[in-house]
Amino acid sequence: MSPPALSRFPVPELKDLPDDLRARILEVQDKAGFVPNVFLTLAHRPAEWRAFMAYHDALLLKEGGSLSKGEREMIVVATSGANHCLYCVVAHGAILRVYEKKPLLADQVAINHRKADITPRQRAMLDFAMKVCTASHEVEEADFAALRGHGFSDEDAWDIAAITAFFGLSNRMANVMGMRPNDEFFLMGRVPRPPRPATA
Amino acid sequence: MSPPALSRFPVPELKDLPDDLRARILEVQDKAGFVPNVFLTLAHRPAEWRAFMAYHDALLLKEGGSLSKGEREMIVVATSGANHCLYCVVAHGAILRVYEKKPLLADQVAINHRKADITPRQRAMLDFAMKVCTASHEVEEADFAALRGHGFSDEDAWDIAAITAFFGLSNRMANVMGMRPNDEFFLMGRVPRPPRPATA
Amino acid sequence: MSPPALSRFPVPELKDLPDDLRARILEVQDKAGFVPNVFLTLAHRPAEWRAFMAYHDALLLKEGGSLSKGEREMIVVATSGANHCLYCVVAHGAILRVYEKKPLLADQVAINHRKADITPRQRAMLDFAMKVCTASHEVEEADFAALRGHGFSDEDAWDIAAITAFFGLSNRMANVMGMRPNDEFFLMGRVPRPPRPATA
Amino acid sequence: MSPPALSRFPVPELKDLPDDLRARILEVQDKAGFVPNVFLTLAHRPAEWRAFMAYHDALLLKEGGSLSKGEREMIVVATSGANHCLYCVVAHGAILRVYEKKPLLADQVAINHRKADITPRQRAMLDFAMKVCTASHEVEEADFAALRGHGFSDEDAWDIAAITAFFGLSNRMANVMGMRPNDEFFLMGRVPRPPRPATA
Amino acid sequence: MSPPALSRFPVPELKDLPDDLRARILEVQDKAGFVPNVFLTLAHRPAEWRAFMAYHDALLLKEGGSLSKGEREMIVVATSGANHCLYCVVAHGAILRVYEKKPLLADQVAINHRKADITPRQRAMLDFAMKVCTASHEVEEADFAALRGHGFSDEDAWDIAAITAFFGLSNRMANVMGMRPNDEFFLMGRVPRPPRPATA
Amino acid sequence: MSPPALSRFPVPELKDLPDDLRARILEVQDKAGFVPNVFLTLAHRPAEWRAFMAYHDALLLKEGGSLSKGEREMIVVATSGANHCLYCVVAHGAILRVYEKKPLLADQVAINHRKADITPRQRAMLDFAMKVCTASHEVEEADFAALRGHGFSDEDAWDIAAITAFFGLSNRMANVMGMRPNDEFFLMGRVPRPPRPATA
Repeated sequence: MSPPALSRFPVPELKDLPDDLRARILEVQDKAGFVPNVFLTLAHRPAEWRAFMAYHDALLLKEGGSLSKGEREMIVVATSGANHCLYCVVAHGAILRVYEKKPLLADQVAINHRKADITPRQRAMLDFAMKVCTASHEVEEADFAALRGHGFSDEDAWDIAAITAFFGLSNRMANVMGMRPNDEFFLMGRVPRPPRPATA
Repeated sequence: MSPPALSRFPVPELKDLPDDLRARILEVQDKAGFVPNVFLTLAHRPAEWRAFMAYHDALLLKEGGSLSKGEREMIVVATSGANHCLYCVVAHGAILRVYEKKPLLADQVAINHRKADITPRQRAMLDFAMKVCTASHEVEEADFAALRGHGFSDEDAWDIAAITAFFGLSNRMANVMGMRPNDEFFLMGRVPRPPRPATA
Repeated sequence: MSPPALSRFPVPELKDLPDDLRARILEVQDKAGFVPNVFLTLAHRPAEWRAFMAYHDALLLKEGGSLSKGEREMIVVATSGANHCLYCVVAHGAILRVYEKKPLLADQVAINHRKADITPRQRAMLDFAMKVCTASHEVEEADFAALRGHGFSDEDAWDIAAITAFFGLSNRMANVMGMRPNDEFFLMGRVPRPPRPATA
Repeated sequence: MSPPALSRFPVPELKDLPDDLRARILEVQDKAGFVPNVFLTLAHRPAEWRAFMAYHDALLLKEGGSLSKGEREMIVVATSGANHCLYCVVAHGAILRVYEKKPLLADQVAINHRKADITPRQRAMLDFAMKVCTASHEVEEADFAALRGHGFSDEDAWDIAAITAFFGLSNRMANVMGMRPNDEFFLMGRVPRPPRPATA
Repeated sequence: MSPPALSRFPVPELKDLPDDLRARILEVQDKAGFVPNVFLTLAHRPAEWRAFMAYHDALLLKEGGSLSKGEREMIVVATSGANHCLYCVVAHGAILRVYEKKPLLADQVAINHRKADITPRQRAMLDFAMKVCTASHEVEEADFAALRGHGFSDEDAWDIAAITAFFGLSNRMANVMGMRPNDEFFLMGRVPRPPRPATA
Repeated sequence: MSPPALSRFPVPELKDLPDDLRARILEVQDKAGFVPNVFLTLAHRPAEWRAFMAYHDALLLKEGGSLSKGEREMIVVATSGANHCLYCVVAHGAILRVYEKKPLLADQVAINHRKADITPRQRAMLDFAMKVCTASHEVEEADFAALRGHGFSDEDAWDIAAITAFFGLSNRMANVMGMRPNDEFFLMGRVPRPPRPATA
């Protein structure tokens, strides 16, 4: 039996990709031990792939601001749950567990962030993200004020909104493509990381 | 009285922007006769600006596929209406009127695409876009089949979904920022274009 | 090619209408320069037409109360947007622009009244109208108190509710009939009014 | 203890009303044995009262068409249930029981018309009414075709839509006013009608 | 013509039921004068019937706590209205009328509890129940605090939630089965109780 | 730091429980290696606990019918996801993984059952369950017919509905109590089961 498809659309082989895509993908593979399917499935459209990755990096790899890497992933997981995006909940849930070293956190945030083991500040962050995700036209001054009450600057608010908005794009593409999460993600951060084989 | 703010966030001056942003903005200004506010307001974050514009161009300036430029704008206007995004409905409504040379079309599509003067094929395109916009997790084979029944390929389906997803991002950012549409957009495509002054 | 239908139902000719309907319609035509389609399409049922116009006049032509004519039209445009009624958004958007002499206002109110260039008092008025439009069973004392905080009397609250309720009727009829807005409305109030030809 | 208020707004006394309102109200009282509160509470605004009653009579007293009087009341009860309007569910539920001589029907229709003891034709009628009530912008040719399949003409469709739309207005006004149903309605049509006292 | 079915599923005859079910049912019949259909229709599955009745009795027959029997029925009627459950609204509406000796109360609570003749404390109780019914994942400390402000203990909150949750189960089963309310319920508590025939 | 609370309500100690509760709980502990929190948190109310467990057993331990144990858990996980119930998604997700020996299945079903690795028959089963969960009043003959098309009997439909309805009760109680899933559940069925220590 053939393995389940990664995407409803054609998935290119690594060898057929433009050099810049292949280089980035090999770098990720080297770091993670596997290639997350989003890198291959979106590569069907190299121009969109480049913009997607540039946007991703601008938001998630950004220095500065008061959002930790784990908090950025909380935003991804909570809003991807609201959008019922299997790929993003599973993949970013894994990253969230790894960053926060809390094996239970991702499931909590994905199912109901109100019940998660997070700080009141993180709760306010996720409340704002969920409003941007589901009713952005109702965002108003009071929402920024609530964030400020927890020490978030307006630049932090931009970060929260932008991460939410970007993964809203990602969620919709993954849902339409039927993007399948790598099996590796389901267990990542739930058990101690297996030792990586030495590379000569 | 000072003019209304273009954005809740700081809006950079053209002279303070990185060269690549300034060059693109001047090019747009030269072509359109004014600088659409999205270019200035998003430039508060140059890295995100670059990714946003690259994504935009990959989807809206793309050659090939069966979606005309006007049809791509129909998708933007219909889904931005569903997201209650003032900037995108007004700005892309203007572009839609210009492309399609139908002064009534943008209002029809924004308010209720079922009542718009469009072809059955365009209706199917917008039905798919609206599903991606509001319930992407329910998109299934039957939705692709419906598109095929109107001559759309699966690559066209990707285009429709990607435009919808990208403007979902844009709508959320514009709503959070309170991005104000330029006054010029409200009238564009409704009346014959005024002659441009000669530039020496 | 024949012009698009004004309504899914038969549209009577002016000459075939009862005298009182024809007289009113001619009066409107003389004042506006054209006959808004609602007058002709609803005239398919003269008894309903008479009640509709009497209700309309009782609410929109009423003297007294603190709602200006422009504010009454704001209510119509905002709630008709919520009901996705093409005819009413376009026709009353035009009247709103004319009354308020603000060419951008109708689009703002129709798409997201929270982003419109209106006063806090007008914002409270539209918040109340939107609640009557979408969840009237939840209207309670607190909603009246909020209006009073902006100087509205309870009689004003009745006016806001009644205009909303009446146009909810109008929106539903226009949606079911597929009532088409006159082309003239789309541009009204966006550009200076063309001079009317002298009538001898 | 004073009796509960009939309305949040002032309720005029019969003797203070314009002659035409008083005459109609006395006529209703003579026929029904009491004055339904809608007649008194709306009479706070005589001009609106006249339009309301004219509209009501045009729809509910109309001769012709294939909708029986009982069927028209079914539409009122089902859609008023969807709008959570206490006055209209109770008052028109009473009238429905009286017309159809089925003491259980009104509760069935108000709570879930899918479980009511009605014909498939009446079910189709109520499905159309509920769509006009909750999502009129989605009404399309297929909805008219479904009605035709049960023998309804397009004129009948207008009747169903107009009754729904008019009572949507009525529901919103009653909800905002807090209009209280007369105690008499709750029992009407549930038990044999008590003999009326002879009038000399 | 055969009478309408009590349920989409087979309804056992009393004589064919296990002894414990028959005994309880006869007891109810003796007390109420008829067998409420829920007892017979659920008896198609005796094991589930026993658990259902045990749960019912634990919640509705419980001694202690500050909820009166009438208040427990208010919760059932309001939430069953939200779930559009014909059987539960009608049957428990009858019981509510009998307990509270208010013939109008059940219809008020079922259609819109905000307009019912209840105390502010009962209003708070029903607001909490409705939140448990429609959005239990959003229940938080503030909801318990609101109840405490009206003198409810946290144990009372459990009672309100448990009654709501249990009848949510009951509503779903009755809706799926198409459980028909006994004709007797529709009139119970609306008119003085008829004298029971003496049993020799 | 004290461990997080298992419930907003008092949680009894095993030694203080009635004998029948303690016996069942010790039996579960012996089998599972730990006591699932639902057993302790609900034991605050022994009468309700007994009814709850009897209902649970009648549905999930029942012999006969065409639903496998794994399929019953799929229903629990999918509908608990829709109700945002952390406890039930996590606990029954674990059981589902164990029964089906598919470590990915529970996350798939909880987030979007349309993307899960299940058969078309299981998809139909979950579609029916989700309708019972979210809109049971709209369940009609066509829904039963769809199940029959996949080989489900009407008795199977009762099973699907009853499991959905019972866990709707459970979800609401767990959400209101803030019931915390045992840490053990998060990993169960994701990795090979650790050897149990021999008991003498």
